[in-house]
Amino acid sequence: MTIESMISDMAAAAKSASREMAACSTLQKNTALLKLADLLRDNASLIQQENARDVDAARKAGLSPAMIDRLTIKDGTMQSMMGGLREVAALDDPVGATVRTWRRPNGLEVSRVRIPLGVIGMIYESRPNVTVDAAALCLKSGNAVILRGGSEALYSNQVLAGLISRALQEAGLPARAAQVVPVADRSAVTTLLQQEEWIDLIIPRGGEGLIRFVVENSRIPVLKHYKGVCHIYVDADADIEMAERICMNAKVQRPGVCNAMETLLVHQKAAPVFLPRVAEKLQAAGVALRGCEQTLRILPQIASATEADWPAEYLDLILAVRVVSDMDEAMAHIAAYGSDHTDAIITQNYDNARRFVKTVNSSVVLVNASTRFNDGGQLGLGAEIGISTTKLHAFGPMGLDELTTTKFVVLGDGQIRE
Amino acid sequence: MTIESMISDMAAAAKSASREMAACSTLQKNTALLKLADLLRDNASLIQQENARDVDAARKAGLSPAMIDRLTIKDGTMQSMMGGLREVAALDDPVGATVRTWRRPNGLEVSRVRIPLGVIGMIYESRPNVTVDAAALCLKSGNAVILRGGSEALYSNQVLAGLISRALQEAGLPARAAQVVPVADRSAVTTLLQQEEWIDLIIPRGGEGLIRFVVENSRIPVLKHYKGVCHIYVDADADIEMAERICMNAKVQRPGVCNAMETLLVHQKAAPVFLPRVAEKLQAAGVALRGCEQTLRILPQIASATEADWPAEYLDLILAVRVVSDMDEAMAHIAAYGSDHTDAIITQNYDNARRFVKTVNSSVVLVNASTRFNDGGQLGLGAEIGISTTKLHAFGPMGLDELTTTKFVVLGDGQIRE
Repeated sequence: MTIESMISDMAAAAKSASREMAACSTLQKNTALLKLADLLRDNASLIQQENARDVDAARKAGLSPAMIDRLTIKDGTMQSMMGGLREVAALDDPVGATVRTWRRPNGLEVSRVRIPLGVIGMIYESRPNVTVDAAALCLKSGNAVILRGGSEALYSNQVLAGLISRALQEAGLPARAAQVVPVADRSAVTTLLQQEEWIDLIIPRGGEGLIRFVVENSRIPVLKHYKGVCHIYVDADADIEMAERICMNAKVQRPGVCNAMETLLVHQKAAPVFLPRVAEKLQAAGVALRGCEQTLRILPQIASATEADWPAEYLDLILAVRVVSDMDEAMAHIAAYGSDHTDAIITQNYDNARRFVKTVNSSVVLVNASTRFNDGGQLGLGAEIGISTTKLHAFGPMGLDELTTTKFVVLGDGQIRE
Repeated sequence: MTIESMISDMAAAAKSASREMAACSTLQKNTALLKLADLLRDNASLIQQENARDVDAARKAGLSPAMIDRLTIKDGTMQSMMGGLREVAALDDPVGATVRTWRRPNGLEVSRVRIPLGVIGMIYESRPNVTVDAAALCLKSGNAVILRGGSEALYSNQVLAGLISRALQEAGLPARAAQVVPVADRSAVTTLLQQEEWIDLIIPRGGEGLIRFVVENSRIPVLKHYKGVCHIYVDADADIEMAERICMNAKVQRPGVCNAMETLLVHQKAAPVFLPRVAEKLQAAGVALRGCEQTLRILPQIASATEADWPAEYLDLILAVRVVSDMDEAMAHIAAYGSDHTDAIITQNYDNARRFVKTVNSSVVLVNASTRFNDGGQLGLGAEIGISTTKLHAFGPMGLDELTTTKFVVLGDGQIRE
């Protein structure tokens, strides 16, 4: 069987399985998720044994320690996969939820009702736990899913795929509702991206290179997230102590993630007091600061920012700092250099808070809170399959609802159109 | 100026105008729409004069009478454009509407708030009234729009574009929030479809050829509608008189539109009584019937359906008819041959109505009502910019809400992530 025919067979089988998934009961889906948690527990040593084959190969291939760390299924990874499955089982089923109902003058009763999207293609890199986490969300939302993890995680993903299919079957659901692409060949990805007849949505997760490759080669709609250049604007009327605490959290707690702060904008009135205080703490935590000309007048010891710093996503302990003359200049900076991801204002001023929230159209806009809250779990979506920075379909963290669409249900008693 | 640089200049100007549109007041947008209605009234003779140039050229080029009819701005077209503008002005502004608000345990207050998509590219064929109708919906929803009508309507669209920009300016809004591509060259379309940096969404309206061209050449997300193969299933427990009335309406009232019935499915128990009655009425209205084997046993005088009839969108006074042994066979037929557009069941049976509505995942699913109700106006969306048969972002008729997305607004008092 060629890779092309294998992939199109998988896609067609997924479409057929998706019809069963769309019609099955919440109980069946939850049973499958809980059974899978049990299967993971009972097969932990088998899973870690297969994972060790991937890890050995990765070591021999000279992959970086960070990549090997992401690839390794530790005991904690096992616990978090099982915990995730139980959490997703406990979430409300989005399918069948009526979003809105209204009556027309002619008596027609119209509703918008959530239905699954159909078949979702997940394309991701090394972490094998994504196989379980993503499958859980896709299945709970009534979709079928085709998973394509990193080639370096092939053995790990295959053993997980077998257990997922077994859990589905034991719950009376189609085994092919979740399938893992069983070959490492990259042409499998390009072929997958051409199955627009069967696949409804592609979600890539990984570095910018992977995402650009997917976008350029896909005939299927893609929900994507390029980068997070997140700003905090400290207003003239900010509570300085609060601003300090939030900036530290947004920059230092986990600098390598997309919702970490990359640029700090400070009102010129707040700068003389706030900047020396926050700089001291940030520097003590190992953050390298790069400032605009005005910042350098207050913090002469830091590096000078260049034009390349403003659109940069460092994902590291580096922070660009700019002093602005007012909030409009801050918002213009965000519009020019931001990535529509996450932007916050720290202020006690009612008008400024309102106007910032109204004007800044990023996927998450915050007042007096850390940018690190742009996360499905933190915002109460239950779990997330990713964060979208494209405005179509979903914007911001994507939970179960974002893996569905709505159909119109129209109930009548003989109405015809005049 | 080359076409490429002209189009990218238009797109960049639209992006910049879209920021002003996103922040402007409802009053300003309504003022612009009402001013435009007045400008159309005051400039009716100029508009019809420019339109006559297009119509003359079309006649000389030998365009079909149907195409010339669509191209002509009659007095009724003028009235309908003006009426449409006043209706859209009267609709609620979707921008700023809070879709949902909730509180997190840590006190964060999270909302999902509607914001405009940004810049919309409309690509359509001959009808110049689409220029005004589509601009009205895009502007009311706070977007900027680039309009690319058929080359045969160039003079008409240009004069309308001038009036739209004047109305915008008189309301204090950016003139370039609505722009018409001023050249007939097709490379303008391909260039437009590459402006992913500036344009957020492409909506093509027209024949399948145009839509396929747009989908294949666009780097920007496309909301599209290929075809409407709409079914009515007449159940064993249908009210025969109601079924007859609804089938007549769905097939005959306007056969050339996407929500007209193309295939009639009849339960074998209803067929012997229902088919002769409905066939008589349909044939009297000029409908040619094409039946399956079992249908032919009841209606021996009609043509025989072939496999090519089941997926056909006739857009004409032709109807495919199939007798099914039960509702499951009807639903399997719809799944195999339907286009996810509009499907209806006629029944008095509670279980069947519920199960049909639950199982059939078309954009509009109806019980005891005509398929012709798949229309934004008819379903109460106020007005529609098109019907989407793709599930991403919007599925079914698209009104003002579908021209927006939501951002998360998070209000806190100093929360940081632990």
